[in-house]
Amino acid sequence: MPQKNKNCYQYFLEIQTRWNDNDMYGHINNAVYYFWFDTLVNNFLIETGLVDPHVSESIGLVVETGCQYFAPLSYPEIITAGLRVSKIGSSSVRYEIGLFKQGAKKPCAEGHFIHVYVDAQTRKPKPISSKMREKLKTLM
Amino acid sequence: MPQKNKNCYQYFLEIQTRWNDNDMYGHINNAVYYFWFDTLVNNFLIETGLVDPHVSESIGLVVETGCQYFAPLSYPEIITAGLRVSKIGSSSVRYEIGLFKQGAKKPCAEGHFIHVYVDAQTRKPKPISSKMREKLKTLM
Amino acid sequence: MPQKNKNCYQYFLEIQTRWNDNDMYGHINNAVYYFWFDTLVNNFLIETGLVDPHVSESIGLVVETGCQYFAPLSYPEIITAGLRVSKIGSSSVRYEIGLFKQGAKKPCAEGHFIHVYVDAQTRKPKPISSKMREKLKTLM
Amino acid sequence: MPQKNKNCYQYFLEIQTRWNDNDMYGHINNAVYYFWFDTLVNNFLIETGLVDPHVSESIGLVVETGCQYFAPLSYPEIITAGLRVSKIGSSSVRYEIGLFKQGAKKPCAEGHFIHVYVDAQTRKPKPISSKMREKLKTLM
Repeated sequence: MPQKNKNCYQYFLEIQTRWNDNDMYGHINNAVYYFWFDTLVNNFLIETGLVDPHVSESIGLVVETGCQYFAPLSYPEIITAGLRVSKIGSSSVRYEIGLFKQGAKKPCAEGHFIHVYVDAQTRKPKPISSKMREKLKTLM
Repeated sequence: MPQKNKNCYQYFLEIQTRWNDNDMYGHINNAVYYFWFDTLVNNFLIETGLVDPHVSESIGLVVETGCQYFAPLSYPEIITAGLRVSKIGSSSVRYEIGLFKQGAKKPCAEGHFIHVYVDAQTRKPKPISSKMREKLKTLM
Repeated sequence: MPQKNKNCYQYFLEIQTRWNDNDMYGHINNAVYYFWFDTLVNNFLIETGLVDPHVSESIGLVVETGCQYFAPLSYPEIITAGLRVSKIGSSSVRYEIGLFKQGAKKPCAEGHFIHVYVDAQTRKPKPISSKMREKLKTLM
Repeated sequence: MPQKNKNCYQYFLEIQTRWNDNDMYGHINNAVYYFWFDTLVNNFLIETGLVDPHVSESIGLVVETGCQYFAPLSYPEIITAGLRVSKIGSSSVRYEIGLFKQGAKKPCAEGHFIHVYVDAQTRKPKPISSKMREKLKTLM
């Protein structure tokens, strides 16, 4: 599958790298990318008012994640993360993420992230509200 | 794809969870699983004498990772991680990982992890040595 | 202040290091020690039945931490962490931690950690119960 | 010791919090602050050209850290971190850090961090160069 250009993404966040994101080989550790994905998705959901993690009645549980790494990244680089939504199911959302070096059009990594919305108390799947669905569609 | 039973895995490590592995929803964060995968794979490589991360001439760069989460895990649980190798290429290895609750036969998460071996200095791909190939085959 | 011998500590936990605990200089990053302190203290509190982080009415907030690093540690070492209590106030506890290499009597790091107990809802300080006080005294 | 006002600090960095910086009580975990301290200090050293972690002949080993927590912080807050130098020895530097909520003059946490400079190969202490000493004095 060809890599997606930056203009395929709809929402962007500048990611500040941290000293300890680098592992002993001097590059960002593969697991750290997923902390960024979490932050990107949650920043979008919080900024659009869709989720308040402290009080929401429904929460997004992560059921699948994945990432392909095309080129290394290193602290202290600033990374641009782009977000898009590729699929909205009845209670699930598939997000796609691209990570870009400053000024680059081609990503150095592409990831995905599937949320299933559940009731915060019972942890049973809950349909995505029409309000959320509308907001998520703006990322498609 | 059906989940793999515990007896499909060849090498095991007990994973000690940490207080901060739990996120604010009270379960292990999805990214933390990848720190465990890293540790599982590297423990195998170090124990078998295949890699010494401080001095090795070739190092394994991670080019792809992925995980499916079937059931939540939480600190302070002890998790059993199982490792197998599903494919050995000329310079790449595909590892598969299963995470099991104490006493369980079915995994609560399944992941994979692809290493490409490169020269530690030039970072160009290097063929996997026949010694390493033999050891990796024991995990197939 | 002289370093404390291993026999000054009352509760012990073997700490499993992780690949990514090492930073790019090849040693455990200074911040990671504090994840271990958290885990050591909480393991003690959970094992003794004093705290269930999912349901407890009072929770320990960390108001001060500190660590001196005498010698480096590295993944994949197994570290022994020792815990003692040096002071119990009306709602606070001061824990002291020693980290030991396998077989060592002298620590390679010494830390401390002050918890103030607060009501889980109001986050106002709460007196330490007599039951907890008794258990904590066993670590003095 | 009274808390230091924001104007006691000389170098500032906006810290981007991450979803997983929050622990299961909904606030930034105490250990995460130290990742920020590391990043703040290293950003200063890299921006001023004093250190290139990939090639420097001398590296700063952390021998002591500490932090007092006055008020909780939470993702997704942006935090302002201030840096000052309180002592420069022959091969050591004591940094002090203040963390501020947006618009606040009083810190919600104060930390310190002592680096000893060592030769990257031998790991023996090395005197701080006069160039570095001059740059560090600008933070006093």
